[in-house]
Amino acid sequence: MRIRVLGSAAGGGFPQWNCACSNCHRLRHGTFPGFPRTQTQLAWSCASGDCSLVNASPDLRAQIEGTPEFWPQATNRRSPIRNVFLTGVEVDQTLGLLLLREFHSFRIHTTPSVRKILTEDNSLFGALARFTEQASWIDMPLEEPFSAGEAILQVLQLPGSFPGFVSPPRIAELGSGDAVIGLCISPDSGGPKLGFFPAVSCISDTLLKELETCEVLLFDGTFWSDDELARIRGVSRTARQLGHLPIGGPDGTLERLAGLRHLRKIFIHINNTNPILDEESAEHRAVCDSGWEVAWDGMEIRL
Amino acid sequence: MRIRVLGSAAGGGFPQWNCACSNCHRLRHGTFPGFPRTQTQLAWSCASGDCSLVNASPDLRAQIEGTPEFWPQATNRRSPIRNVFLTGVEVDQTLGLLLLREFHSFRIHTTPSVRKILTEDNSLFGALARFTEQASWIDMPLEEPFSAGEAILQVLQLPGSFPGFVSPPRIAELGSGDAVIGLCISPDSGGPKLGFFPAVSCISDTLLKELETCEVLLFDGTFWSDDELARIRGVSRTARQLGHLPIGGPDGTLERLAGLRHLRKIFIHINNTNPILDEESAEHRAVCDSGWEVAWDGMEIRL
Repeated sequence: MRIRVLGSAAGGGFPQWNCACSNCHRLRHGTFPGFPRTQTQLAWSCASGDCSLVNASPDLRAQIEGTPEFWPQATNRRSPIRNVFLTGVEVDQTLGLLLLREFHSFRIHTTPSVRKILTEDNSLFGALARFTEQASWIDMPLEEPFSAGEAILQVLQLPGSFPGFVSPPRIAELGSGDAVIGLCISPDSGGPKLGFFPAVSCISDTLLKELETCEVLLFDGTFWSDDELARIRGVSRTARQLGHLPIGGPDGTLERLAGLRHLRKIFIHINNTNPILDEESAEHRAVCDSGWEVAWDGMEIRL
Repeated sequence: MRIRVLGSAAGGGFPQWNCACSNCHRLRHGTFPGFPRTQTQLAWSCASGDCSLVNASPDLRAQIEGTPEFWPQATNRRSPIRNVFLTGVEVDQTLGLLLLREFHSFRIHTTPSVRKILTEDNSLFGALARFTEQASWIDMPLEEPFSAGEAILQVLQLPGSFPGFVSPPRIAELGSGDAVIGLCISPDSGGPKLGFFPAVSCISDTLLKELETCEVLLFDGTFWSDDELARIRGVSRTARQLGHLPIGGPDGTLERLAGLRHLRKIFIHINNTNPILDEESAEHRAVCDSGWEVAWDGMEIRL
């Protein structure tokens, strides 16, 4: 089983359209020691040739065109993409669903809350209901592993809330138990487990135990420091308030996960402001010296 | 005044993600005599440096990054994009609004119906209401010219209906008078008028008279023939039923607008299946021989 990282940036991508921070500015002007990144998107192909996506990024059109494996074949004229699994309802996790709207049948696996928000509170998603069996919405089991896309998956519910666009009455009705999840993925033939956790606000001991059972970890690398946005863009909320434990600092991810030694650890969902994108920075070096990798668009992970 | 064509394709772009028609297949394999195109997007810059967009395509992130004029400046860290004008509520006209969501204030000019559908029926657009004056929604006058974005604009209401995702009760409430519009744009200093009509299902004598007052016409070039989708993709609806007068054939656009001789005529919003994309095709030749141009990504039009 081969997991592809089609995109590795946080919402907005790198560079971000309206940002002229040092990272974005230098990248646009060709003086940045690092690479552009599209918004976080995973995918895998099955033995049958069918493909599955994890989340649906706004950059999905370009991500698909950049990956010949996901092109429709001239012989059958249908896309191999059959399943999409969502780990939340953020714009950068869901908008790409609407890019899959042209005369194609596929399955969308979500938590019950995410399904309700998208299909009941957003008429645009009617674009995926233009013919019978265009998009089939499937609630993922929250408590036990399940089989889909020729893989074994398991949802891990994480602390966290819905994005700000979800109305207070809707939140009151839904609770927030399934607002933010991680997803563990293994080949259905058995074998190594990959954990995908792009939004982690704190690492409980329970979560730590789960992470220890993974062979590969794709983990929240959104921000380096808690006040990163405040310093660069004047945004008052901290990384933690935005639902992302920072990588550095006291009780940051590097410190909290220092004991995880027997698995491959990769930061993903990296915000444009994060200094680890600069491959000559002290922060990039600190991450590498701690045994972590930094995900990049086009990265492949074999399980 | 310089109008930029940032994208020139119909919904889905060219190539389209799940299509292996002759055009898409050859383009992907490097044997197509023509160019890829992103989804239709216009823009202009004002003397002040502010920019305006017409529609908001799903490809907007890449379209902005591809145009240095629209980058945020290091000195003020804000995007020059201040206005967006929508000519309808199709996914390929509106999804890009959500790409403009990061801590930026701008104005969205729509018809009243389009505003209601986006803001009242789609909670995702709450992502544009995270702080006071993030997005200001402004109803465009339907009957008379108005001034915005350092230009004079005029709405022309066209026959047509809302996309299939808009619910029947909503349609019953709204009527369809402002579902589909064209937009005429002139410099506010006076000067030539550009008409933008990406969705025209029939050309009435009234519309014909309006078109005659334009110096430049960007016109619906979605399909060459009425049964184009049926022949290529097995879709039962005709071009006309989808709201697009075909270019060729009896009563098609070439024939219907043959009398328009004193203006620059350009086809835009071109579907991936349209043979005019193939620059060696008989249809491409027929279009050029009739005095029309075919819009391309990066085209600039001076008014």
